[in-house]
Amino acid sequence: MPNPESLDTMISLCRHRIEAALDQILPAAATPPETLHEAMRYSTLAGGKYVRPLLVYCAGQACDVPMARLDAAACAVELIHAYSLIHDDLPAMDDDALRRGRPTCHIAYGEAMAILAGDALQALAFHVLAHENDSLTPHQRLRMMDTLAYASGSLGMAGGQAIDMQSIGRTLDVDELENMHTRKTGALIQASILLGGLAADPVDEQVLQQLGGFGRCIGLAFQIRDDILDVESATETLGKPQGSDEDMNKPTYTSLLGLEGAHEKLREVHDKALHYLDGMGPKADYLRQVAEYIVGRKY
Amino acid sequence: MPNPESLDTMISLCRHRIEAALDQILPAAATPPETLHEAMRYSTLAGGKYVRPLLVYCAGQACDVPMARLDAAACAVELIHAYSLIHDDLPAMDDDALRRGRPTCHIAYGEAMAILAGDALQALAFHVLAHENDSLTPHQRLRMMDTLAYASGSLGMAGGQAIDMQSIGRTLDVDELENMHTRKTGALIQASILLGGLAADPVDEQVLQQLGGFGRCIGLAFQIRDDILDVESATETLGKPQGSDEDMNKPTYTSLLGLEGAHEKLREVHDKALHYLDGMGPKADYLRQVAEYIVGRKY
Repeated sequence: MPNPESLDTMISLCRHRIEAALDQILPAAATPPETLHEAMRYSTLAGGKYVRPLLVYCAGQACDVPMARLDAAACAVELIHAYSLIHDDLPAMDDDALRRGRPTCHIAYGEAMAILAGDALQALAFHVLAHENDSLTPHQRLRMMDTLAYASGSLGMAGGQAIDMQSIGRTLDVDELENMHTRKTGALIQASILLGGLAADPVDEQVLQQLGGFGRCIGLAFQIRDDILDVESATETLGKPQGSDEDMNKPTYTSLLGLEGAHEKLREVHDKALHYLDGMGPKADYLRQVAEYIVGRKY
Repeated sequence: MPNPESLDTMISLCRHRIEAALDQILPAAATPPETLHEAMRYSTLAGGKYVRPLLVYCAGQACDVPMARLDAAACAVELIHAYSLIHDDLPAMDDDALRRGRPTCHIAYGEAMAILAGDALQALAFHVLAHENDSLTPHQRLRMMDTLAYASGSLGMAGGQAIDMQSIGRTLDVDELENMHTRKTGALIQASILLGGLAADPVDEQVLQQLGGFGRCIGLAFQIRDDILDVESATETLGKPQGSDEDMNKPTYTSLLGLEGAHEKLREVHDKALHYLDGMGPKADYLRQVAEYIVGRKY
């Protein structure tokens, strides 16, 4: 069994690194246009879990990459994630007023500023990777950007969100649900893992294949766990065995497979994820622990 | 005097090239998620003037770059432009229902799809430049992406739009107005010119400086001409000497300088633009003609 204390140390180390790096990369709130920069900082430095940067660092660790060579990639995936949350929360999308216990970006800064903050964060993600950086070769940075742009575009994250918006009230089967999540949240999670592997010099293409498979599985695990948590926390706090009524129209793993079926699926996907790391030895232990963490997380 | 026929030929050549290239780069409308891809194609292949790709090709011409080496950059700037128009038209921003005589993206496909189409087009712009491309060196592509990301982010285009949103009903002076436009439309116009120069191998840093100065001036000229056209077309068609009433609260060059003052400013900026091309000889003729075209355009 992996040692959970060791992952906690890694999580806290990553958090400090990424918060410092993001703070440096984001324009100061005093730099004009001030409101836009405030909104960008508000939504990026919002005390998130920084799961995607953690994945970059852990995948890098599995490929013997020093942490300093991973900072740009870790920032880029978090900036893409932050932009996607701002846009997903908009009235025309999920219409959420709260995120992590605070008003969402458009509630705090208005809708126009929230749209622009998201747009500017996406540009900044690519800027971070494109900008002169001595620790990565030009070829490495290009492959990272190629991977990240694909994962966040219409065939990845943005496409998954489009499928999600169109699936409300419709019946999806498990394959369609998996396709939606593989794009919506899975693509960026997988890209985070791949970026860690792409920071190795030279890149080991065989290892990259394994990381890609691992990333696909834990992306899926992340979503299944989300759906299970939705039901279990609703059951605990509201005493009813389903997610919130508003979500009834949204297909989930638990609504399609039942709670037990979803747990079973989660175990399968977890096993498959670990299988992809076969032969990578103890240096992939952080990745194994991250998988455990995703499968077992309580919030 | 530059020969206008020759620029017309160049414009039509560029249009064919860029339309073919965009058609190839944009996912087919039949590729899932279909509605998202339809919306992306609807707004990108909308019969625009393709001014930014034209600038890439003309600047490349001034640096002896073959057209084939400029296609990726030309696509990238047009994709960024198309995304910005979709987002600018949204109800929370300029709330426009028509563009180029057709319903805007959110009218045709709904607001959620329009937000996502814009997001995905931005990702695609970077994907085009990051993706394997034999005609440019990795270093060239990185510099192009660095330039493009900066120009479209919070210190460029998105920042300019934020300043614009906040300036409605406020009094700006000419410097503030210039700062807003330099970012909002100027940054991407300048970047288009720079990308043409960055496709040269090796890049001539002195020429790049000149192109940057030229790009800044014609970006400004573009906006001043816009403001003048607004007044002149309103005067012609409505018989009143000001732009549409809705715009009365928006500062413009004509509202700050008067119609004659705006014409004067346009002439100054045009002269300055041409001055930046001194010493570049006849191969910069297309750029000179483009400046003429921008200053003289009637729509």
